[in-house]
Amino acid sequence: MKFVLSPDSFKESMSAKEVAESMERGLKVVFPQAQYIKIPMADGGEGTVESLVEATSGKIYNVSVTDPLGNPVVANFGILGDKKTAVIEMASASGIQLVPQDKRNPSVTTTYGTGELIKAALEKGANHLIIGIGGSGTNDGGAGMLQALGVRFLTKNNEEIPRGGKNLNLIHKIDISNLDSRLSKVKVEVACDVTNPLTGKEGASYIFGPQKGATEEMVKELDNNLKHYAKVIREQIGKDVENISGAGAAGGLGAGLLAFLDTKLVRGVDLIIHYTNLESHIKDADFVFTGEGSIDSQTLFGKTPFGVASVAKKYNVPVIVLAGRIGKGYEKLYDHGITAIFNILSKVTTLEHALKDGSQNVETTSQNIGRLIKASQDI
Amino acid sequence: MKFVLSPDSFKESMSAKEVAESMERGLKVVFPQAQYIKIPMADGGEGTVESLVEATSGKIYNVSVTDPLGNPVVANFGILGDKKTAVIEMASASGIQLVPQDKRNPSVTTTYGTGELIKAALEKGANHLIIGIGGSGTNDGGAGMLQALGVRFLTKNNEEIPRGGKNLNLIHKIDISNLDSRLSKVKVEVACDVTNPLTGKEGASYIFGPQKGATEEMVKELDNNLKHYAKVIREQIGKDVENISGAGAAGGLGAGLLAFLDTKLVRGVDLIIHYTNLESHIKDADFVFTGEGSIDSQTLFGKTPFGVASVAKKYNVPVIVLAGRIGKGYEKLYDHGITAIFNILSKVTTLEHALKDGSQNVETTSQNIGRLIKASQDI
Repeated sequence: MKFVLSPDSFKESMSAKEVAESMERGLKVVFPQAQYIKIPMADGGEGTVESLVEATSGKIYNVSVTDPLGNPVVANFGILGDKKTAVIEMASASGIQLVPQDKRNPSVTTTYGTGELIKAALEKGANHLIIGIGGSGTNDGGAGMLQALGVRFLTKNNEEIPRGGKNLNLIHKIDISNLDSRLSKVKVEVACDVTNPLTGKEGASYIFGPQKGATEEMVKELDNNLKHYAKVIREQIGKDVENISGAGAAGGLGAGLLAFLDTKLVRGVDLIIHYTNLESHIKDADFVFTGEGSIDSQTLFGKTPFGVASVAKKYNVPVIVLAGRIGKGYEKLYDHGITAIFNILSKVTTLEHALKDGSQNVETTSQNIGRLIKASQDI
Repeated sequence: MKFVLSPDSFKESMSAKEVAESMERGLKVVFPQAQYIKIPMADGGEGTVESLVEATSGKIYNVSVTDPLGNPVVANFGILGDKKTAVIEMASASGIQLVPQDKRNPSVTTTYGTGELIKAALEKGANHLIIGIGGSGTNDGGAGMLQALGVRFLTKNNEEIPRGGKNLNLIHKIDISNLDSRLSKVKVEVACDVTNPLTGKEGASYIFGPQKGATEEMVKELDNNLKHYAKVIREQIGKDVENISGAGAAGGLGAGLLAFLDTKLVRGVDLIIHYTNLESHIKDADFVFTGEGSIDSQTLFGKTPFGVASVAKKYNVPVIVLAGRIGKGYEKLYDHGITAIFNILSKVTTLEHALKDGSQNVETTSQNIGRLIKASQDI
């Protein structure tokens, strides 16, 4: 028997690696001789660095960078086993979780730290970047990131604009003469699951601004500023990124990457599946176990269990999903390669206790699933 | 494929029959052609009448009897498919649930209604009684029941003693000349899972009195009265029931039955298993599904899933348990024929919602188990 264990994290409860280990402990009670391939997954959000570094025997580096408010913060990035591919979560340097609730203001927050992370990756010899852009606390179109990499956004008076989305309207001229020259040979893949354009009612400011602390008035100003930003880029860089699907991701960081770097936007889980070599492990497996804290109809939109099941389906390998919450529309997953879905809870309890007991519950449920598999094989 | 579906009820959520039907609905999605044998179970407590009547295509009868406080109440009993065996739950006539919280007083409550139920069963031609004695609200040693059947407990002045445990000390003479003569040909099996003697610190009054509303003083008086009751029975009937294991069940109803009727005490679930012919259905089954609201180490002490598993173990038929709560020590069940245990919850929720969603959750979980069984058979 060969089991591939490829869960996502259970948010606020367990990392993907912990989930996979708990699954293995449970199954091993029943199948001590089986082969277990643990490939902790992610969908481009939290856990992406850990997942890819783990799967490729890479390495994680810590580096001090600038947080969204301009203060120093220790962020990290990974270099994969090939030593040429870096993996970065923008949230590590520029995430909303770094901004205290009462200071959330996307007019002033900057992606500068993300640029510093990219620079640190270049120092390690990376010529290929995988960037996860979930959880941003910024709305600066990636201007801060580009400034950290040498791009100069200049006012009419030839002065660099201050950081933050509220200053993008001051851009008069873009000077790329100091752009880090190593970037000309770097390919960028962005794990991006949103389809929002840079501007407009479906754009970065209107859709994601409010959850980052923008008032109604602020949203209008930020949207106008991104329109100006896109216009200057169009005129001076020759790239029209304003309406590209996904350009509005991470407060317009998507647009900034598309305009200045050799960038492709890719669905997060597909990137992880590719770089973890998941398919090669799954194709001769007997069972795939995956899971996520919550499973429902949204899971179909590129979440980890759906991505994993898409691969397994090609090879008719059954996929077992574990979850802490099974919500509306989950049954649609049966048409997409998912065989069965089990909740890990053991009793009526508080969310706090359920999160705390996650690892034990995954182990117990996995053991019971293993016991049922064994009994069914004998029928 | 042949499935036997033999759950107990999920208390406050679903009857055993509803659980079995929900299991069938879930499994049928996956195995539409399979054979489903639904045998709702019980362990001698609530649901015993329904289970045995259902399994044998018997009939339920309603009859007006005397409740524990002396008021009329409609209770029921069953006549099994053989038309000779009656099944009675004493709680239907004499249960604690019939006594309002503020009137709970085992000094005055009577089992008279249980005797009336027995009499009604005799009228239907029963020569065999199965009596479930869980949930009593009485402590009268079964004297009330015996009075209803014609036994006279007389004072020194040759007057019948009033009903209620507090009057047992008045018994001077027992007159059985009016005892219903049909009872001489009746065999009684009592579903009894407790081992308490009639009297003493482990007896009916001390152990079960307080939960029926007895004060500390009352407990002492009731225990002394039962000692007197046992003494008079010993002297005048020639049976010593005071220290028989189980004589203290249902406020001493066990003792009353043992002393005056041809009575055997049997573990509840074993009785149900026997009269539902469960073994004949299980022996060629592929899977047995059982379950109960709560599963833990206590399940080993004669609860339904344990009893069902004991039968299935003989024939190496795998047993799947569904539960709403999986508590401490559940893993001991793996040594007693239980293959795997699954919780039916779908998310963190309140007990109220969990109870309300029980049927849907059993169906969903059963479907997922079915899907896993099917996938496992193909490996």
